[in-house]
Amino acid sequence: MCEANAYLLKEGKEELILEAVDIVEPHEEGKIRLANIFGEQKVLDAKLKSMSLVNHKIVLE
Amino acid sequence: MCEANAYLLKEGKEELILEAVDIVEPHEEGKIRLANIFGEQKVLDAKLKSMSLVNHKIVLE
Repeated sequence: MCEANAYLLKEGKEELILEAVDIVEPHEEGKIRLANIFGEQKVLDAKLKSMSLVNHKIVLE
Repeated sequence: MCEANAYLLKEGKEELILEAVDIVEPHEEGKIRLANIFGEQKVLDAKLKSMSLVNHKIVLE
């Protein structure tokens, strides 16, 4: 279970947007695509701020 | 042990650049910083191409 939770930083607060993320990759038009182990995916107009695999945490902004 | 190995895609081939990566984050001037669980870090003039946490694999280009 090495997936991570993805958060979007909004006005200084981290909002959980997708749990158990497996895939992180750039998408068209500067967006970012996240997909999790349950087959859910989200495409966000955001960029990577930080990621710690040890802490299972991805932060986008 | 949820770290990942980071590869740089060069001329179609994946070259291992850092093992057991924990941290991935943007660095100044469009670079990317990787740090691993052993305290090693690398700053590369590259961008994220894809990442699979389940496969423990980060690919930069």
